[in-house]
Amino acid sequence: MARCDALGVAPYSDMEGGLFRAWLTPAFAAAQKAVGGWMAEAGMAVRIDAATNLIGRYEGITPAAPALLIGSHIDSVRDGGRYDGSLGVMLGIECVAALKAVGRRMPFAIEVIAFGDEEGSRFPAPMLTSRAVTGAFDPASLSVVGRDGVTVGQALSDNHFAPELFADAARGSALAYLEAHIEQGPALEADGLAVGIVTGIAAQLRYRVVIKGAAGHAGTTSMALRRDALAAAAEAVLVVERIGSEGPDDLVATVGRLDVAPGAVNVIPGRVDLSLDIRALDPAVRDAAAEAILAEIKAIAARRGVDLLAELVHDLPASPCDPGLMDLLADAMVAEAQPERRLASGAGHDAMVMASLCPTAMLFIRCAGGISHNPAEAVDPADVEIARRVMLGFIERLGEDFDA
Amino acid sequence: MARCDALGVAPYSDMEGGLFRAWLTPAFAAAQKAVGGWMAEAGMAVRIDAATNLIGRYEGITPAAPALLIGSHIDSVRDGGRYDGSLGVMLGIECVAALKAVGRRMPFAIEVIAFGDEEGSRFPAPMLTSRAVTGAFDPASLSVVGRDGVTVGQALSDNHFAPELFADAARGSALAYLEAHIEQGPALEADGLAVGIVTGIAAQLRYRVVIKGAAGHAGTTSMALRRDALAAAAEAVLVVERIGSEGPDDLVATVGRLDVAPGAVNVIPGRVDLSLDIRALDPAVRDAAAEAILAEIKAIAARRGVDLLAELVHDLPASPCDPGLMDLLADAMVAEAQPERRLASGAGHDAMVMASLCPTAMLFIRCAGGISHNPAEAVDPADVEIARRVMLGFIERLGEDFDA
Repeated sequence: MARCDALGVAPYSDMEGGLFRAWLTPAFAAAQKAVGGWMAEAGMAVRIDAATNLIGRYEGITPAAPALLIGSHIDSVRDGGRYDGSLGVMLGIECVAALKAVGRRMPFAIEVIAFGDEEGSRFPAPMLTSRAVTGAFDPASLSVVGRDGVTVGQALSDNHFAPELFADAARGSALAYLEAHIEQGPALEADGLAVGIVTGIAAQLRYRVVIKGAAGHAGTTSMALRRDALAAAAEAVLVVERIGSEGPDDLVATVGRLDVAPGAVNVIPGRVDLSLDIRALDPAVRDAAAEAILAEIKAIAARRGVDLLAELVHDLPASPCDPGLMDLLADAMVAEAQPERRLASGAGHDAMVMASLCPTAMLFIRCAGGISHNPAEAVDPADVEIARRVMLGFIERLGEDFDA
Repeated sequence: MARCDALGVAPYSDMEGGLFRAWLTPAFAAAQKAVGGWMAEAGMAVRIDAATNLIGRYEGITPAAPALLIGSHIDSVRDGGRYDGSLGVMLGIECVAALKAVGRRMPFAIEVIAFGDEEGSRFPAPMLTSRAVTGAFDPASLSVVGRDGVTVGQALSDNHFAPELFADAARGSALAYLEAHIEQGPALEADGLAVGIVTGIAAQLRYRVVIKGAAGHAGTTSMALRRDALAAAAEAVLVVERIGSEGPDDLVATVGRLDVAPGAVNVIPGRVDLSLDIRALDPAVRDAAAEAILAEIKAIAARRGVDLLAELVHDLPASPCDPGLMDLLADAMVAEAQPERRLASGAGHDAMVMASLCPTAMLFIRCAGGISHNPAEAVDPADVEIARRVMLGFIERLGEDFDA
């Protein structure tokens, strides 16, 4: 945690009075240098791969043994928190440091990976660096342009990486991938638990919804003659909330963006653009909710005589964690006297990308108020210590399985 | 109408491809020159008063007789319509032209006033110029700053008007004030009527409402643990619509502006700022509706555990039109074979300011689809001709009353 805190300020942040560490920025390069030093100190051989990922390797009993990957990201959103991503990397380093301290080698190697780009922090294209590791990198992403007008390819060149070699970071295989991460939600806190086992990353649908009514003078158009786009949208928002609440706990449905046009005090809204985000661990649950929501919104639009456009803009499959690895985490938790709690992740993580390479496991750590992507992000040192011990227990149990 | 159309383009508009004629701009000055020419052509003595209003006077039988004022405004909103305001001025000129053509003088003078600033087109302070005419001008308004950083006082000086003389436009009295204006609403069209008698300008309340919930990750915060400011606001919007619809026809209640923060697809809205506008001819109806709406919104906030702020920002009294003058308009309409229809004006007009000086009357003219403040604003020439004849009939009847 002290290391996460140290990375929260200049030169590891490019923002005055807060943390902003976007991929391929001076703050990012400085953080790589610091974290690489800590990896070396913990007994790892440190390298940076072709996709800018910082990797520390702690050899297993047999040289060139397959590797357990422990990773998370060291980029951050603007004005973000200090533990989102970084804490998982530090926990990986601490696990290796603990093994090294007692001279313990596992039958497999351990590689701690600090991914470069999880947040889409510099370019509107998240998880490029873990995609490269799994061989799923799309070279078209090199042309994606950031807010400063620079492409991914140019930014790589500017940082002395060869864009044409980016995809060479692909690795053939790995034993498993483990990621510890703050929950970024309030579920563990609500249940009074330090850590939880992630069952998988939710399947996600996103829609762009446009409702077109008729703008008009708010003073002169009688209520009966209105086709108010905002009133229709208000009904839609409540439908989203109701249907989202009717499903299992991991089903969530959200209208996060809602823009009213023309948006003047004395004008009846003629148009509303809104976002619809629906997630559930089970894609069937998600799809049924989406279908029910869209059917009700369609009925609202028809009844009110407003036009409706609902366009699917994003369809991410679910990424279930490996049942065997979940059980190892559960055993390790019980050994640390922690109640076993399994929960889905509504947020995306590098683990969802890594799932195409090898079995994955994720450990969530309670965070205060469920707050993340915010300077107020906070974790309890006692919880982090429990997470570290559970991860070490997981590594030991994975070793037993490996030998068996 | 041809003159309104002519004023819809450069040099009478400061906007490429549309009409924008803000007070005290080059387009405004050009329009004053053109309209002044038409006034003179119709037989009027033309002057510009200390408050920038263009006034044409057609003397009555007795020199210095009291005046019937016929007016409206020649400023426009950005990308506005060509008939809002200007049509009323042109109709005044046409009435005088018709009298002049037959050599008819009334026992009173007729003054056609083209007000400068009704829309708040350049400064966030509407109806300054009619306020000056009635003696209700507040000198503090001279310090109001426009979007370009220039004060009212500075803009007056730049246009060769002495700010310190602005209030000198006040006149002691007038016989009556008549304003013809497009309805800017769909009521006359819905009833298939060309014109209608305005019973008064609605009393208006405006509130600024802030709802504060808790922002959170849209993927990780279960529905049960949310305090979604937008869901609360959606309920509020529907309360406003329902209570607005439960009252008499002239009661209207509108949420025109609604801003969601942080407004990201994957973040639960933490805060919503919205506007609430409530109008009715009868202030008691308006106040009862406002009270009912605020009570229900308060209950919603309490039930959802979100914070609520509702601040009154605007309280305009109703401005009833003169019953005697309404009856004269009604007689004139019947004489033109028009069904008598009386309706309230939900929008504000210079007439509401002029009511403090003398009895007022307003004639509404049907406009296509109720559309105004929009380039699509349209009127039917046949309706405008009916309006002209009704206004002339009104003038004749006012003359009979005056003599009696």
